[in-house]
Amino acid sequence: MHSVGICGSDVHMWQNGRIGDFVLKQPMVLGHEASGRVVKVGSAVTHLNAGDRVAVEPGAPREIDEFFKSGHYNLSPSVFFCSCPPDDGTLCRYYKHNANFCYKLPDNLTYEEGALIEPLSVGIHACRRAGVTLGSSVFVCGAGPIGLVSLLAAKAMGASQVIISDLYSDRLAKAKEMGADFLLHVKKEDEPKEMAKKVEGMLGCMPQISIECTGSSIQTAIYAARSGGVVVPVGFGAEMTTVPLLNAAVREVDIRGVFRYCNTWPVAISMLVSKKVNVKPLVTHRFPLEQAMQAFEMSRQRLGVKVILKCDQNDQNP
Amino acid sequence: MHSVGICGSDVHMWQNGRIGDFVLKQPMVLGHEASGRVVKVGSAVTHLNAGDRVAVEPGAPREIDEFFKSGHYNLSPSVFFCSCPPDDGTLCRYYKHNANFCYKLPDNLTYEEGALIEPLSVGIHACRRAGVTLGSSVFVCGAGPIGLVSLLAAKAMGASQVIISDLYSDRLAKAKEMGADFLLHVKKEDEPKEMAKKVEGMLGCMPQISIECTGSSIQTAIYAARSGGVVVPVGFGAEMTTVPLLNAAVREVDIRGVFRYCNTWPVAISMLVSKKVNVKPLVTHRFPLEQAMQAFEMSRQRLGVKVILKCDQNDQNP
Amino acid sequence: MHSVGICGSDVHMWQNGRIGDFVLKQPMVLGHEASGRVVKVGSAVTHLNAGDRVAVEPGAPREIDEFFKSGHYNLSPSVFFCSCPPDDGTLCRYYKHNANFCYKLPDNLTYEEGALIEPLSVGIHACRRAGVTLGSSVFVCGAGPIGLVSLLAAKAMGASQVIISDLYSDRLAKAKEMGADFLLHVKKEDEPKEMAKKVEGMLGCMPQISIECTGSSIQTAIYAARSGGVVVPVGFGAEMTTVPLLNAAVREVDIRGVFRYCNTWPVAISMLVSKKVNVKPLVTHRFPLEQAMQAFEMSRQRLGVKVILKCDQNDQNP
Amino acid sequence: MHSVGICGSDVHMWQNGRIGDFVLKQPMVLGHEASGRVVKVGSAVTHLNAGDRVAVEPGAPREIDEFFKSGHYNLSPSVFFCSCPPDDGTLCRYYKHNANFCYKLPDNLTYEEGALIEPLSVGIHACRRAGVTLGSSVFVCGAGPIGLVSLLAAKAMGASQVIISDLYSDRLAKAKEMGADFLLHVKKEDEPKEMAKKVEGMLGCMPQISIECTGSSIQTAIYAARSGGVVVPVGFGAEMTTVPLLNAAVREVDIRGVFRYCNTWPVAISMLVSKKVNVKPLVTHRFPLEQAMQAFEMSRQRLGVKVILKCDQNDQNP
Repeated sequence: MHSVGICGSDVHMWQNGRIGDFVLKQPMVLGHEASGRVVKVGSAVTHLNAGDRVAVEPGAPREIDEFFKSGHYNLSPSVFFCSCPPDDGTLCRYYKHNANFCYKLPDNLTYEEGALIEPLSVGIHACRRAGVTLGSSVFVCGAGPIGLVSLLAAKAMGASQVIISDLYSDRLAKAKEMGADFLLHVKKEDEPKEMAKKVEGMLGCMPQISIECTGSSIQTAIYAARSGGVVVPVGFGAEMTTVPLLNAAVREVDIRGVFRYCNTWPVAISMLVSKKVNVKPLVTHRFPLEQAMQAFEMSRQRLGVKVILKCDQNDQNP
Repeated sequence: MHSVGICGSDVHMWQNGRIGDFVLKQPMVLGHEASGRVVKVGSAVTHLNAGDRVAVEPGAPREIDEFFKSGHYNLSPSVFFCSCPPDDGTLCRYYKHNANFCYKLPDNLTYEEGALIEPLSVGIHACRRAGVTLGSSVFVCGAGPIGLVSLLAAKAMGASQVIISDLYSDRLAKAKEMGADFLLHVKKEDEPKEMAKKVEGMLGCMPQISIECTGSSIQTAIYAARSGGVVVPVGFGAEMTTVPLLNAAVREVDIRGVFRYCNTWPVAISMLVSKKVNVKPLVTHRFPLEQAMQAFEMSRQRLGVKVILKCDQNDQNP
Repeated sequence: MHSVGICGSDVHMWQNGRIGDFVLKQPMVLGHEASGRVVKVGSAVTHLNAGDRVAVEPGAPREIDEFFKSGHYNLSPSVFFCSCPPDDGTLCRYYKHNANFCYKLPDNLTYEEGALIEPLSVGIHACRRAGVTLGSSVFVCGAGPIGLVSLLAAKAMGASQVIISDLYSDRLAKAKEMGADFLLHVKKEDEPKEMAKKVEGMLGCMPQISIECTGSSIQTAIYAARSGGVVVPVGFGAEMTTVPLLNAAVREVDIRGVFRYCNTWPVAISMLVSKKVNVKPLVTHRFPLEQAMQAFEMSRQRLGVKVILKCDQNDQNP
Repeated sequence: MHSVGICGSDVHMWQNGRIGDFVLKQPMVLGHEASGRVVKVGSAVTHLNAGDRVAVEPGAPREIDEFFKSGHYNLSPSVFFCSCPPDDGTLCRYYKHNANFCYKLPDNLTYEEGALIEPLSVGIHACRRAGVTLGSSVFVCGAGPIGLVSLLAAKAMGASQVIISDLYSDRLAKAKEMGADFLLHVKKEDEPKEMAKKVEGMLGCMPQISIECTGSSIQTAIYAARSGGVVVPVGFGAEMTTVPLLNAAVREVDIRGVFRYCNTWPVAISMLVSKKVNVKPLVTHRFPLEQAMQAFEMSRQRLGVKVILKCDQNDQNP
C-alpha cells in the first residue's frame, strides 16, 4: 500500500467499536481509502501486472446475486468491505484484494489522487442518486469531507449553482476554494424552515436537490428542495428520525439514501485524468504509517480535511 | 354531470374544513371524481362536441410553468383542482371545466367507470412513482379505496404478487375479490418490524415496493421493502413523522411521495376499454344527488368502498 | 438435462454453420433453451442442491468487467453462451453450467416451462428495452416464436392493445389464441407506409412501440411508431439495412436493439408461478433426444411453433 | 428584436424553399435564434414587463395535447415554430411571441448570448437524448455550429473526453479552442470502420456516445459507439439511409434522433450566468439587419461559424 486516507467512519469505529449494526468483535485493521502498487497477481488476472499502480475499491461483492447481476453490487448483503467488521482494512504495508476491484492508475495521477477516489465516489454516487444534471441547483448541507466531494461531483455533473452550509467558517472557506457558488453560515439553533428560506433567497430559487452530509439537517434539506426534487441523506443520523414526510410527499420530493457506491472508479479516474475534477485540495495533512495514532487523533478533532497515511516506507510522496 | 364518487378527502373537508394547508374560507362545492355529458364547448375546442360523454380530470394547470412544460403539471403551484379551496367541485348538475382535461369516454365504458378513473389514477400514479414493473412484488398497506386502486394498478403493470394488509377482514375480502395474492390481517398494536417480517414470510421474499395507503404504517412500509426498493407514502399522515430513515437510506430504499397524478386518463381509459382493469367492483353504493347527505354520512362511517352520487335526474344508471 | 427447445438460431447454425460473426470451426453441441435436474454442485454453491429442478440461463459472463458491474452482463464481450461457437450447448444428457445462472424451478412449474423461460426472456428483454408499460399500444411484426413471446411479455407488462402481423394465417390464429388484440395479415409485396397506415387504422392510433421480429419489416416498424416512441429490432436482418432514419430521427422514434437478455429468469419464474403468463401453448411438438434430426427438420420447415427435445430417457413428461 | 443568428436551416430554406416535408408556399420571414426587448405584454402575462430583455424559444405548442402534457412539447404536431413554413420568423424589428416561451435575460448576459441559447439548446437536447453524464466519452462528428454546441453541452454535462471530427482543419481549430480534447481530421473517402478505429485509438476506448452532426457519417457513428451506447443523429441526411443496423442492434447501441429541443432555455440561462458554458466564441461575424443578404451569403459559403444580424438600429452591441 502507498497512501490511505482516514475516513470519519474509521475514527468512529476506533472510538466506538461500532457503526450502526456493524459491530467490532475482534481486532480489525482500519482503512479503506487506498492506493498502492501491485506486487503479485493471481493466475486468472489479465488486466493488471506486478508494478502497476492501482486504486482500490474497498467493496467487492462475494456472491453473484440479484443485486450484483442488476448493477447494484453495493447492495449485495454479503459484500466484502475493507475495514467493515470483520473484514480487515488497508492500513498496512501489504494487502490482498479482489483484482476486479483494483483499477490501474494512469501515469499522470498520484497515489493520493488514487486514494481519494474513494471519498470522491461517495460524492459521485450521491449526485447520481440525486440526479444532478445540467443546470441543477444543489444545496449541500455540511462542508466536511463528504460535503466537499459532493460539491466537486455536483459541479462536474453540470450543476449551475451549488450552495453549501456549515457551522464553521473555515470549512466554508475551503468549500469556496473548491468551487462552491454560495456559502451559508448556519448555527445549531437555526430553524429548518428559516434555513430553507435562506437557501432559496441566496440561490434565487429553491434547489432541485439537497444533499445532506451532516446527519442532522434532514428537515432543512427537505424544506429547501423544490417540488419534484430530491433529498439525499448521506450523513448518518439517528436510527429513528423525525421528518416532515408529508411536506416531502405532497411535493413529490424524493428521499433517496446511499450505501457507499458502485461503478464509480472508472468514471472518477477519467475525470481526474482529464482535470475536470481536482481532489488534491482535500489533503491537508500527511503522516507516515508509524504515526497513525497522531493522524487519527488529528482526524478525531476534525482539524483539517483529509489526513493521509503514507504506508510505503520508501516513498512518502503524494 | 352524471356520476360523481365521494372521496375520503371530500369527507375530511366536509368534517374539518381543511386538509393540511388547504383551508376552507368560504362555501365550496365538493366532488372531483366525475363524469358527465358535454352540453357546450368553447370555440377553440376541436376534440369534443356537445353530446360526448366525458371523464373529468379535476386538476388542470392554470399556467404554463416549468412543471407543466416538463410533464409534471400536477406539481404546478397554481393548478386548478376541483373541490380544493377555493375551487368548486363537480357535485352539481352542470359544471364548466378546461376541455383539455376532459376525455371522451368510449361507448363501452359507463359513466361510473369514467368517474372511477380519478381514484384509479391515484393508484396508477403511485405505481408509476414506485416503478412497478414485470415481476414486481408489492406490499400495499391498507385495503380502503386507495389501497384497492393501487392493487389494481400494480397487477395491471405486471406485479407478480401483491400482498395487502388491513385492520378489517371485510376490506381484505374485497381486496381478495379484486385480485390480491396475499392478505395480511393486522392489528393497531402490531410492531412495524414484526409486520415487515410477516410480509416477507408470506411472499417468500421482501417486496421491492411498499405502497402505504393508511397514513400510519410508514415504518412498516420501510422495514418491509427490499434493498434498492421503493416506498410510496400515499396516505396522509401527520405533518411530522418519525421514520427509520437510516434503515431506508443505507439500504437505498427510496421514499417517493405522490401529489395526485398526471397523464393518467388516456392510459386508464385504454386499460378499461381493453378490460385489463376492472374498477366496477369498487362501487358499493349509489345515491341520487338529492340524497348527498346520506351518501356522505355513509362514506364518513366507512361503510362500503365507493359511494357514487348520481347527478343526472334523467339517467341514474351506472 | 430434461427438456430443451429448438430455437431458430439452432436451425440456422445447423444449416449454415454460422450466424453473423459467430462461425462454426469445430463440432459443437446445439441447444440453449433448457431445463434439467441438478446431479452435483460445486463446493461453493449454496443456493442449489442435488435433486433440484432448474432452468438454465445459457449466457454466463466469464469476466467481471464494466458491463457486468453495471448490470448489462449480456453485453460482456467474453460472455459464455450455450451453443454459440465455440461453447457447447445443452442438447445432451448431462451438462455442466455456472450455478449462478441456474435457477430453481418451483414445484408448480414443469420442466418445459423452465426451458421456455429462454425464449420468453427474449420477449421480456425486448419489451423492457421498448419501455412497454401500462397502457402501451404495441405493434409486433411477425407471429413466429419470438413474436409470440413478445406478445406475451407486452401483455404482461401492461400493454392495453397489441397488434401482430404475419404472412401466414395459421400463425396469426396462434397469436389470437395467445392474446393478440388485433391481427394484420400482410403480404410480402405490401408497402411499408401502407402497412403502417393499416396498423394505425386498426388500433385507432399509432402504436408507441414496434417490435420487429421478422428481420425484414424494419421500415414498416419505423413508419408505424408514434412520435416519441420506440422500435426494437429483434429479428436479424442483413448486415446493412436501408431505413427511413430521418423519419425516425425527427419524430424522436428510438431504435433500440437487443442482444439476448439479462436479469430475466427470476422475473419470468415469478410470472409463470403466479400464472400471469402462460407459455405452454408455445409447445406444439415433442421428440425424444434420439429423434433430434426429425425435430430439427420439423423446425426447419417451420411447422408448428416450438419443438421440444426430451433429454431424460426416464421422464419424457412436459 | 435585437440579435438574431443565422442557422444553416435558414440558409437551406432560402436556397431551396423547403426542408424535408416543410415546404415554402408563400413569402415567409426567416430567423429563429433570437433575443430582444419586451415592448408590450398581454394582460395575462405576469412574469415579464415592458423593458425586459428576453431570449426567444422559437417553438411554442399551440395545443395542450398528449405530447405537451407529458413534457415533450417539441413533438406536438401542431407546434408553432419561427421560420418554419408557414410561421414567420424573427428576422425583423418587432415580433409577437407566446410569452410563456420568452425568458428574461439576467443582466450579465448579452443579447447575443440570449440568441445563441437556441443553437446551444440543440446541443443540450442532443446530449440529453444521448444520456451524456459524468465521465462519458463522446464522439462528435462534424465541427460546424451544431457540432460545437454539442461539444459545449457534452463538456458541461460531465463528459471526460470529447473527440470531434471534421473535413476542415480550421473548424477543428475552433473546436480545440472551445474545449475539444481530441481532433480527428477526416476525408470524404475514409471508410466508416477505419474512422471508428481511429476514434477508439485516440480515446483509448470506444466512446459511449456518438453525436452525428454532418448528416453523412451515421455509419461511422454507429461503428464507433461502445456496446450499450447511444448514437444521436442530429444532422439531416437523406430520407432513406443505409446503416449497419444489425451491428447497432446486437451491441444494443441505441439510435435516438432529435427534433429541435424542449425545456432547455432555463437550463441554458443558468449555465451561461454561472459561466460554466461560454457560447461567445461561436460568433464570428455581425451585420446590421439591412445587410441581411451579405450575412446570408456569408453563411451560405460557410465562412466563419455563427453570423449574427443586429435588428435594433439603436443598439448594435453584442
